[in-house]
Amino acid sequence: MIIVLRPDCTDAQRQHLFEKIEELGFRYDISQGEKRTLVGLIGEEDKLRDAPLRAIPGVEDVMSVLKPFKLASREFQHDDSCFDLGHGVRVGAGHLMMIGGPCAIEGEEVLFEIGRAVKAAGANVLRGGAFKPRTSPYSYQGMGEEGLKILRRAGDELKMPVVTEVMDPRRVELVNRYTDIFQIGARNMQNFNLLNEVGQTNRPVLLKRGMSATVQDLLMSAEYILSNGNKQVILCERGVKSFDPSTRNLLDLAAIPNVHGLSHLPIIVDPSHATGRPDLIPAMAIAAVAAGADGVHIEVHNCPEKAMSDGPQALLPEQYTGVMEELRKVAEVLGRTIPVAGAEEN
Amino acid sequence: MIIVLRPDCTDAQRQHLFEKIEELGFRYDISQGEKRTLVGLIGEEDKLRDAPLRAIPGVEDVMSVLKPFKLASREFQHDDSCFDLGHGVRVGAGHLMMIGGPCAIEGEEVLFEIGRAVKAAGANVLRGGAFKPRTSPYSYQGMGEEGLKILRRAGDELKMPVVTEVMDPRRVELVNRYTDIFQIGARNMQNFNLLNEVGQTNRPVLLKRGMSATVQDLLMSAEYILSNGNKQVILCERGVKSFDPSTRNLLDLAAIPNVHGLSHLPIIVDPSHATGRPDLIPAMAIAAVAAGADGVHIEVHNCPEKAMSDGPQALLPEQYTGVMEELRKVAEVLGRTIPVAGAEEN
Amino acid sequence: MIIVLRPDCTDAQRQHLFEKIEELGFRYDISQGEKRTLVGLIGEEDKLRDAPLRAIPGVEDVMSVLKPFKLASREFQHDDSCFDLGHGVRVGAGHLMMIGGPCAIEGEEVLFEIGRAVKAAGANVLRGGAFKPRTSPYSYQGMGEEGLKILRRAGDELKMPVVTEVMDPRRVELVNRYTDIFQIGARNMQNFNLLNEVGQTNRPVLLKRGMSATVQDLLMSAEYILSNGNKQVILCERGVKSFDPSTRNLLDLAAIPNVHGLSHLPIIVDPSHATGRPDLIPAMAIAAVAAGADGVHIEVHNCPEKAMSDGPQALLPEQYTGVMEELRKVAEVLGRTIPVAGAEEN
Amino acid sequence: MIIVLRPDCTDAQRQHLFEKIEELGFRYDISQGEKRTLVGLIGEEDKLRDAPLRAIPGVEDVMSVLKPFKLASREFQHDDSCFDLGHGVRVGAGHLMMIGGPCAIEGEEVLFEIGRAVKAAGANVLRGGAFKPRTSPYSYQGMGEEGLKILRRAGDELKMPVVTEVMDPRRVELVNRYTDIFQIGARNMQNFNLLNEVGQTNRPVLLKRGMSATVQDLLMSAEYILSNGNKQVILCERGVKSFDPSTRNLLDLAAIPNVHGLSHLPIIVDPSHATGRPDLIPAMAIAAVAAGADGVHIEVHNCPEKAMSDGPQALLPEQYTGVMEELRKVAEVLGRTIPVAGAEEN
Repeated sequence: MIIVLRPDCTDAQRQHLFEKIEELGFRYDISQGEKRTLVGLIGEEDKLRDAPLRAIPGVEDVMSVLKPFKLASREFQHDDSCFDLGHGVRVGAGHLMMIGGPCAIEGEEVLFEIGRAVKAAGANVLRGGAFKPRTSPYSYQGMGEEGLKILRRAGDELKMPVVTEVMDPRRVELVNRYTDIFQIGARNMQNFNLLNEVGQTNRPVLLKRGMSATVQDLLMSAEYILSNGNKQVILCERGVKSFDPSTRNLLDLAAIPNVHGLSHLPIIVDPSHATGRPDLIPAMAIAAVAAGADGVHIEVHNCPEKAMSDGPQALLPEQYTGVMEELRKVAEVLGRTIPVAGAEEN
Repeated sequence: MIIVLRPDCTDAQRQHLFEKIEELGFRYDISQGEKRTLVGLIGEEDKLRDAPLRAIPGVEDVMSVLKPFKLASREFQHDDSCFDLGHGVRVGAGHLMMIGGPCAIEGEEVLFEIGRAVKAAGANVLRGGAFKPRTSPYSYQGMGEEGLKILRRAGDELKMPVVTEVMDPRRVELVNRYTDIFQIGARNMQNFNLLNEVGQTNRPVLLKRGMSATVQDLLMSAEYILSNGNKQVILCERGVKSFDPSTRNLLDLAAIPNVHGLSHLPIIVDPSHATGRPDLIPAMAIAAVAAGADGVHIEVHNCPEKAMSDGPQALLPEQYTGVMEELRKVAEVLGRTIPVAGAEEN
Repeated sequence: MIIVLRPDCTDAQRQHLFEKIEELGFRYDISQGEKRTLVGLIGEEDKLRDAPLRAIPGVEDVMSVLKPFKLASREFQHDDSCFDLGHGVRVGAGHLMMIGGPCAIEGEEVLFEIGRAVKAAGANVLRGGAFKPRTSPYSYQGMGEEGLKILRRAGDELKMPVVTEVMDPRRVELVNRYTDIFQIGARNMQNFNLLNEVGQTNRPVLLKRGMSATVQDLLMSAEYILSNGNKQVILCERGVKSFDPSTRNLLDLAAIPNVHGLSHLPIIVDPSHATGRPDLIPAMAIAAVAAGADGVHIEVHNCPEKAMSDGPQALLPEQYTGVMEELRKVAEVLGRTIPVAGAEEN
Repeated sequence: MIIVLRPDCTDAQRQHLFEKIEELGFRYDISQGEKRTLVGLIGEEDKLRDAPLRAIPGVEDVMSVLKPFKLASREFQHDDSCFDLGHGVRVGAGHLMMIGGPCAIEGEEVLFEIGRAVKAAGANVLRGGAFKPRTSPYSYQGMGEEGLKILRRAGDELKMPVVTEVMDPRRVELVNRYTDIFQIGARNMQNFNLLNEVGQTNRPVLLKRGMSATVQDLLMSAEYILSNGNKQVILCERGVKSFDPSTRNLLDLAAIPNVHGLSHLPIIVDPSHATGRPDLIPAMAIAAVAAGADGVHIEVHNCPEKAMSDGPQALLPEQYTGVMEELRKVAEVLGRTIPVAGAEEN
């Protein structure tokens, strides 16, 4: 932590500041520049983060030197994390998680049909929403527990791990009974009570980046889960808000190498929610893998015009199959592996 | 709802589209332009909002004509809403709610001292956080129920209604026992389960705008509360994310006349969180009232350098007194009233 | 300037860095923290701004301590600047510049009619565009020199200073023959050759903030003009890009006290371009003055449905008169003055 | 164009509107919905774009159906454009333009050394700035004509086409004498006079996206050049402004398929300016080609710590060589070609 003094900082203010620093258990160095005086604080920076140093009279600015996340950082764990998701599927350290499936679970028949199609195309995780966060209270809100049961049966029969969103801390236990992976949606990235709850389970958590969260904010939310004891956090870039209305969000693919530099956690990409446009999803999925993403999340529906949620952004199974073919080529040439779900079974 | 057909839309696709429209219970008009054909749908637009019309082959674009919120709209209720907050304080229809107090409740003595100071300056609602949403799991998280009890005692003794944040749907009942007004923080503006819970109480709810929520998103979140039966929603503009790091957020004061045009609900402004800078708070508080805001929310601390949360952005009691004097002048010249809390009592 | 060393910085890298620093003519202090080593550079920071210190091996980060603008800063000139605009109108240090007029000059009769109306309402500067920066090459581009002549005649007859935009460095001389104040539009805020040209005249320059310029960027562009010798720069906040499509731009009123803290230059507000909505302009004009703005810029047209540019955002003369009445009340109660153009003449 | 009438639109207002529409030479259809009446205008929409329809009493909203660009659109030219850049290099329709070189031309020896290195690595266009747009008037502004001469000699000797920025309409003729390709920088994307000037030459123009320009804004700026007669416009995505300070800008790779859907023009990507971070450039360059970009622009310097501009974001020649190897693999597997500059010569 570095404190910059105001040019008009009085001796009494300096004295008060130095006492305050010592009171906090820190030592300090002073660097007297031509226009400003700097005070370097020596000690464990994390202890100072909440101290309102900027409120002390005579202080012009306070600059942080270290990142505020620890368990999520590369300094804490040097090697890439790699998690087992079930049915032989792994994510991280060169293994790609390929999530496919509908936005919402709408019924057994539809989900099985879509599930079979995405698995045949190479998806290794099946998705489907039972509780849907909808901007409007009048929109379809999901099938609830009935949907979770259908998803579980689909995963078991198709031999694929399944992922589904949990929105309410009161339902973590319920969802935990049915899913292999929790999804925390973008709107809940800073729902800290929910993060604490999934942090107390031992299931992998797919944590989506909030619509206006910085990369550091995302890692701080991961830190909530990690600090509760759950080490299996998979990050997900899904676009951030921007001024250009031509896409639903602005996909930040630079977040991938950015996160890989700062953290050992895997990060995947969701081009479906990022763009909201089926014509852009294939290119963005391929670019994501080329950028080093640890997986891709794509919504697929066999009849988008009948989908109960986000139909217009879903790929058709045949489009998904085409994307997966391209993805395999790029993954191979760049030395990455796409595990096949259930390959070792029966 | 207007559907724009693709220039290459086939007759079979048109036929399929028209059947689909009739299946949904709608009639339609066709307008054949020089380059595009438009189809105007006639019926209750709300029923169509979730229909994935854009996924139907041959459709280029779908344009909405009506706003998606109803109970929150001026069309639903023409006159300004005005709510009683307790101790003779009202908000809306020309009455200003002046919230003052510390970011977090830190102890009885501090809260009473700050409370007395803000009341003397003209604040008519006392604030204080007992559960704090902190970006870092290692930051101070608040006093919990103990803090709520202190806040309640302060409100009773000072004869001011109190407001405090609720973050977790499981704690709505607990917070309801102590507070006069619920606050939903910016990070929870789209925590729909939480909105449903406070929507089932009969306390006023102060709903803060999310960091990247549009004005329409904010009104849709209000709609969640209203549609649960609770009519007392007070909106709060507190800045949105921007590219300029010189302020914490970018305060969108145009949201005030914008909301007033669209909705009957009152809207107040929080310049403390919007700017994060005590040197900018006074000017923004005055501008807010001049822009037509139904109140102002300002954090005040008697010793910012000891505050356990957000100290550097708090005003000192004497600074707050200065701002309130200016606010009164502007309110008066523009014909607005600042109720005095507890004026009718004893 | 502070240099943060990487934790793995070798002794040889340190040595190389220290030599480099001395080569640049600087001294340095070292502060050895628990996790990072800091190097404080002592000397004239401005000399270092362009030095690619971050490219030196072993360097993790470089932090600037001082602001990069000089002539524009409060440290350079403590008191508010105040400029004479002609016809007894001044701006800055409590004097408000009230610009009114049409977006584009469309003909003599129209301009005179609008000019008379805005002057009667209290405007003290007349605006009108002769060269229009239009997003589309197919849109109306302005009357050119013919328009400038009309504007000049209107200013002379109505006894008001006039302001008009210059877009091309080749036309600075031409525009200089007719205008009292140059306007640099938002799209040209970083057209550095144009800034240099107007910097070499001795006319006041109204410099509009770019659509994604930070407050610091705006002050750096002012610095271009000031460093060419022209001291009369008036800044103009006119909204920045945002994700909310309900207004044309997002008006950043906090920029006013923000600029006033950093700089001695006056700053006015343009709610017409900021919001693009006549229903929001009055509230934002009043809020701007309440926030401390040194003036307001409003587009007025007597027949918006016939305007050749930006008609839908213009106020009618009677609406403008209403706004000016409110503005006078707020200005008076806050101790500010609106000069009357041509008051001392005849 | 569709006009939505206000629910309180009077018969007289309707009548006035219909007369106005006919006056403009249009026919119309009326669609009477349950809550709103729509008026579809039939005729050439472009003629209406500037008509201030929204200012007509009784009008609630005006919706555009067609895109405002013509010559740049896929509807105007169905097949991908492909341009000859010289020395056998082409861009578009599967041919990739690989620009390498320093930010600024600093001297003959340095430029030749960097030029040889990037050519050996596979670059097929050499870049170097002679006129630099710098945020600060105190920063290095470039070598001017002397630099252009050096660049020309380097291109001739290395048998590579060269690209350099032009910032001032008065210097288009000068730069035209030396360069093969004009670059228009992000800050000048809407410097319409400059666009008109380069539009009147017959050299290819590399048009960079402005920092807060939408994809449509970018295409409208291309339209300025095209409508002046110059058909050779190459677009360049280089990141837009965002709230996350961890990268210089936010690279919008979805702009690539987005532009490819709307336009026949080629689009390349500049990961150097987009990220400002050498550690992110390689991944973003590879992702760009995977997303379908028609080329990549990378800054390279043999001694970044001595570079006179943007040194910290430059790759070293050996890093650039590594990136080019990966790029070739991805380009090959996706069926794209990287032309070799000067391959057919001597």
